[in-house]
Amino acid sequence: MADIHFNKDQGSKLKLFTPGPVFVPEWVLKELSKPNDTHRSVPYQEMHKQAREGIQKLLYTENDCFIFTSSATGIMEACVRNLVNKDEKALFLSIGAFGDRWYEIGVKNGKNAIKEGVEWGKALKPEIVKDILSKDHYSAVFLQSNETSTGVYNPMEEIIPIIKDSGALVCVDTTSSIAGVKIEIDKLRIDVCLASVQKCLALPPGLAIASISQHALEKAEKVENRGFYFDFVYFKKKSNSNETPTTPPIPQIRALVAQLDYILNEEGIENRFIRHTRLGKRTRIWARDMNLEMFPEKGYESNTVSTMRNSINLDCGKMVNEMLSKGYRIVNGYGDLANKTFRIGHMGEITIKDLEEMLETLTDVISAQRLNKISTN
Amino acid sequence: MADIHFNKDQGSKLKLFTPGPVFVPEWVLKELSKPNDTHRSVPYQEMHKQAREGIQKLLYTENDCFIFTSSATGIMEACVRNLVNKDEKALFLSIGAFGDRWYEIGVKNGKNAIKEGVEWGKALKPEIVKDILSKDHYSAVFLQSNETSTGVYNPMEEIIPIIKDSGALVCVDTTSSIAGVKIEIDKLRIDVCLASVQKCLALPPGLAIASISQHALEKAEKVENRGFYFDFVYFKKKSNSNETPTTPPIPQIRALVAQLDYILNEEGIENRFIRHTRLGKRTRIWARDMNLEMFPEKGYESNTVSTMRNSINLDCGKMVNEMLSKGYRIVNGYGDLANKTFRIGHMGEITIKDLEEMLETLTDVISAQRLNKISTN
Repeated sequence: MADIHFNKDQGSKLKLFTPGPVFVPEWVLKELSKPNDTHRSVPYQEMHKQAREGIQKLLYTENDCFIFTSSATGIMEACVRNLVNKDEKALFLSIGAFGDRWYEIGVKNGKNAIKEGVEWGKALKPEIVKDILSKDHYSAVFLQSNETSTGVYNPMEEIIPIIKDSGALVCVDTTSSIAGVKIEIDKLRIDVCLASVQKCLALPPGLAIASISQHALEKAEKVENRGFYFDFVYFKKKSNSNETPTTPPIPQIRALVAQLDYILNEEGIENRFIRHTRLGKRTRIWARDMNLEMFPEKGYESNTVSTMRNSINLDCGKMVNEMLSKGYRIVNGYGDLANKTFRIGHMGEITIKDLEEMLETLTDVISAQRLNKISTN
Repeated sequence: MADIHFNKDQGSKLKLFTPGPVFVPEWVLKELSKPNDTHRSVPYQEMHKQAREGIQKLLYTENDCFIFTSSATGIMEACVRNLVNKDEKALFLSIGAFGDRWYEIGVKNGKNAIKEGVEWGKALKPEIVKDILSKDHYSAVFLQSNETSTGVYNPMEEIIPIIKDSGALVCVDTTSSIAGVKIEIDKLRIDVCLASVQKCLALPPGLAIASISQHALEKAEKVENRGFYFDFVYFKKKSNSNETPTTPPIPQIRALVAQLDYILNEEGIENRFIRHTRLGKRTRIWARDMNLEMFPEKGYESNTVSTMRNSINLDCGKMVNEMLSKGYRIVNGYGDLANKTFRIGHMGEITIKDLEEMLETLTDVISAQRLNKISTN
């Protein structure tokens, strides 16, 4: 029986400059190991209420906010199942791998799914969105704010009003920008804003959250075959008493409450956005100094994950491994973009000082690789 | 902005005698707060492999085991979506609230769902199952081993072979018995054995696991509209490289690995089953001494959650609250069974000594309530 070797290590000491999961600060980690009551108890309901209200502040919304035991992909599927009827068309505006995934979710759930988009590295500009929407009528539109695979940030304030004016419900996946980039849900009239928490929120994975508009809830009531696990209507019913339909990941909810407190009451939400903007800018200056082109088109670069084009012919896999040996994790390009691009995540609790230190090491690694290449040629 | 009062408590000090979530031991809690690498890393893959292999040992199976970011209800929906085609009939054998939930999941996912069962408090006996199966042909059958709402344990070794011999795939929800009651998956030829981990495994919630037979995987490949998030075929593909399709709850997986190590290599799995049997027996002896009838029919009482009929006219809500004030959480009956029954969970790491202490307090609380009733009559 007892022939498995279980590894009892002390956890990772790596400094993560990844587009999630990211470095989790000590004050969050210690929340995870506190003993909990059950999810059908007054203490849980109080905690859940704090989480709900904190998420509302984070998203500038009065819409109700649900907590899901799933990754963000689960809520992407939830949106598709709750908001699109058989006789309706769903539009997936893709600018990269996660947009493509949402379209695939639409198809695999038997919806009339249409994918439109732009070349990877480009953003959805207003005229493009207008053009797409002029061709047909869609009952719901699905898109990312920040596309983790390409490092592009869509101009949300310009394109969301256009989509809303078409009469469609709009669902936005903000997984890799929530708590890092300001997005005002009620001002933009976003029906569902969803995200997981292991990116700019700097929490461990295991939880996903979403704000849901009244319009979306009313629509869900009319959609057949919504299923059970992700049924928005059931979530709303339980949310009214600060509960979830099924057992939630209590440690992560406790950690979320602590982190919302830190963000809203200690760092300050606007300061957090400013810090992420600075992290993005600093990384792009470094890239320019290294003769590395940015993969995203100018003006649409993400401030949470920087994607550099491998314009100086690096061995990106080797570079990632050398950084690992120096205690840092950065990541190669996503899927087919591996070695054509590489990525640095600067999300969550990373400071400018942390970033500077990492970039110094990365500069050395790249310089050594280039020197070595010259000497072996 | 900063007007939310966040509660920074030290966690619950309650002793949980609940049917989940349950008391989580210190050695598990401390695993949760270790820093983690990402889910696309070698250290994660090694951890995932240990979890997979440990679950296989726990379930006496060579079937692959998947890890889901969901509660058990998510995998109940996954089974329905992955294993039942449009032209097929699915049979839900219900003996309580969670059996009814599985049937509801079948209906809400548009399947041809048929519910059969027995009166709450009774078990599915072989002749009943034979009779039900003789009436029609079902491509898949869904049932609980241990029904948390009634405290009944079905005679799995007698009824599963009957279901398998009908040619149906069989899915068993073992949420409230896994790691507490022995179930040999390969011997019984169970196609999907699913469970969450916040019960006899004594882990915090946020994770669910399942073993999946080759037969079930082959069937899933032929089922349309399986969706994306719970697609068994995609899970299998990622499982081959010790990964999950989307970001998993890494802290809970780390805790699972530590707990599997404890169960398999320290307590010993057979010892754990024996301990749960003793906990069940001791609770039933106590109930008899208190003139409390058991709700389940004799011989089918669960050894992980005891459901007592309120045969001595207690105010169960008041009793639960009085126990709370003394540091213990026990629970009222489920749904409509509230006050007609109440429940004591004796799952996970609870020892006979823990149980004795709690029962002593409960005896006092009940005696005081009865005395008070006599004096006020």
